[in-house]
Amino acid sequence: MNWLDLYVELKPDLAFVENELERSLQTDRGLLGEAAAHLLKAGGKRVRPALVLVSGRFGRYSLERLAPVAVALELIHMGSLVHDDVIDDADVRRGRLTVKSKWDNRVAMYTGDYIFAKALMTIAELDNPDIHRILSRAMVQMCLGEMEQIRHFFETGQTVRDYLKRIRRKTALLIAVSCQLGALAADAPPPVAARLYRYGYNIGMAFQIRDDILDITGTEERLGKPPGSDIRQGNITLPYIYSLQDETRRGRMLALIRGLRDGEGEDGAAELLRLVRESGGIRRAESLSARYVEKAREALGGLPDVPARRWLSDISLFLANRDH
Amino acid sequence: MNWLDLYVELKPDLAFVENELERSLQTDRGLLGEAAAHLLKAGGKRVRPALVLVSGRFGRYSLERLAPVAVALELIHMGSLVHDDVIDDADVRRGRLTVKSKWDNRVAMYTGDYIFAKALMTIAELDNPDIHRILSRAMVQMCLGEMEQIRHFFETGQTVRDYLKRIRRKTALLIAVSCQLGALAADAPPPVAARLYRYGYNIGMAFQIRDDILDITGTEERLGKPPGSDIRQGNITLPYIYSLQDETRRGRMLALIRGLRDGEGEDGAAELLRLVRESGGIRRAESLSARYVEKAREALGGLPDVPARRWLSDISLFLANRDH
Repeated sequence: MNWLDLYVELKPDLAFVENELERSLQTDRGLLGEAAAHLLKAGGKRVRPALVLVSGRFGRYSLERLAPVAVALELIHMGSLVHDDVIDDADVRRGRLTVKSKWDNRVAMYTGDYIFAKALMTIAELDNPDIHRILSRAMVQMCLGEMEQIRHFFETGQTVRDYLKRIRRKTALLIAVSCQLGALAADAPPPVAARLYRYGYNIGMAFQIRDDILDITGTEERLGKPPGSDIRQGNITLPYIYSLQDETRRGRMLALIRGLRDGEGEDGAAELLRLVRESGGIRRAESLSARYVEKAREALGGLPDVPARRWLSDISLFLANRDH
Repeated sequence: MNWLDLYVELKPDLAFVENELERSLQTDRGLLGEAAAHLLKAGGKRVRPALVLVSGRFGRYSLERLAPVAVALELIHMGSLVHDDVIDDADVRRGRLTVKSKWDNRVAMYTGDYIFAKALMTIAELDNPDIHRILSRAMVQMCLGEMEQIRHFFETGQTVRDYLKRIRRKTALLIAVSCQLGALAADAPPPVAARLYRYGYNIGMAFQIRDDILDITGTEERLGKPPGSDIRQGNITLPYIYSLQDETRRGRMLALIRGLRDGEGEDGAAELLRLVRESGGIRRAESLSARYVEKAREALGGLPDVPARRWLSDISLFLANRDH
């Protein structure tokens, strides 16, 4: 099931945003246009645009004002994915070849830059300096998060705290900002925007933890990419950190991670996946994710009782329990 | 001689901008901060900030309003250099190791993204939607220019027109915009801003052609990187395009370029450099560069006769004749 089917009422407006997204990337021909079209066709959950639109319901809802915010956020997300695929040396995402794989790293670099620049153009049309400021800060934080991820590659000494700090910047912040900006663009009262930010932050954390769990427990068919991608590139996520705390597994896991780091084949990844799946690491990560969902739902508690509040509640459950 | 010594009067204000530039990148610690500091220390001609400040003299000059524009433009330029070094596989720039060489491509990618995001933050503080719009469009065009460059790598059938179209986007536009935004930020009259844009566009074209000539005629000591970098990576610049029109050299040059493309060693590059140096290609490229400088000086003709006009005239001559 497509998660958007949950929200029949959002459908026409999300379709409008999708159209605007296409339009913003279709103005130029050549390789960049092709690469961008390829990305659009790969689709995605469009979580950020959906959150912008739903959050806009807490103010004076205007699709005209919300759509550019939704488009800008999705473009920033798309641009960062293209750059991540270079870093991750990823060949497949969402069941399709990545830009870096279909073309090369150079094309992926400039396609990412181009999409970021298009995001700016979209924001520039908004004439709202607050939105601009909030978004540019979020982008700086995202870059810091990505760099922290690189710095921690194959770093088996990292703590849960290191991990949380990283995913906060890398993922949760942009999702928080999606909710906040939807509210601001619709002139919702500041305390409402602040609560929506808090909701978004917490579902963002839950979302990324869930993503990192799925990379271990998912199937290639479901994920659209082979499981174990994280550990193969050295990204030690929450379930691994928890499992490394288990003394009966720790020694073997450290050896396997060292092996991966030193390029000693793929077998290590399969055994690591098995070790983590059998450990309590998955369960503990799931329980932390559930705590974030709970906090997100608490943040909703203080919001006016409009239908959008229920939708946000449904979204939080969906994201936390999704299997792809 | 440092070209900035020409403009004693600009010095304190440029020093202020340099300081702001450092400040904007120094807020964060870790790898990104280090990479950014490394870049700042490598210096640069700071052409774009200088043009912003001089152009601001045609309106109500205010360092406070001009500095963020100057910083944003230099940041965009720096970010694009970091990404170019990945594409170009460059190890040295301005006599220092590049970020991708000192660290790796992944660090260079996110350092570039981070610097772009910092540029946005700087622009966001400006509250001037026109500036924002103009800059974001220029960034889109820069990306398109970079992609055209990649698409044309080792493409010996390209025309002078292809080359000019590419450097317009890749270089000239951001320089044009530096002049235009300096004028706009100082509330200069629109026709003055338009003339400054035209001036900047033409010196930008001359600047890039000169750069491409220097890559052939310069020495490693002067350039801060080995000559022939362009052709080794497949970037067929104006002097090569002209030389390829010379039937006595064409056959040999085509064979050598094919050899470089197929990775058959560095010897080909040295012979290509010699062939182009001996041909009329350099002279013809110099003459086209001179025509752009002339057009730039014509654009200055219609501007009020303030000292800044003479400075711009000096800058145009300096950029066109520089040997590094």
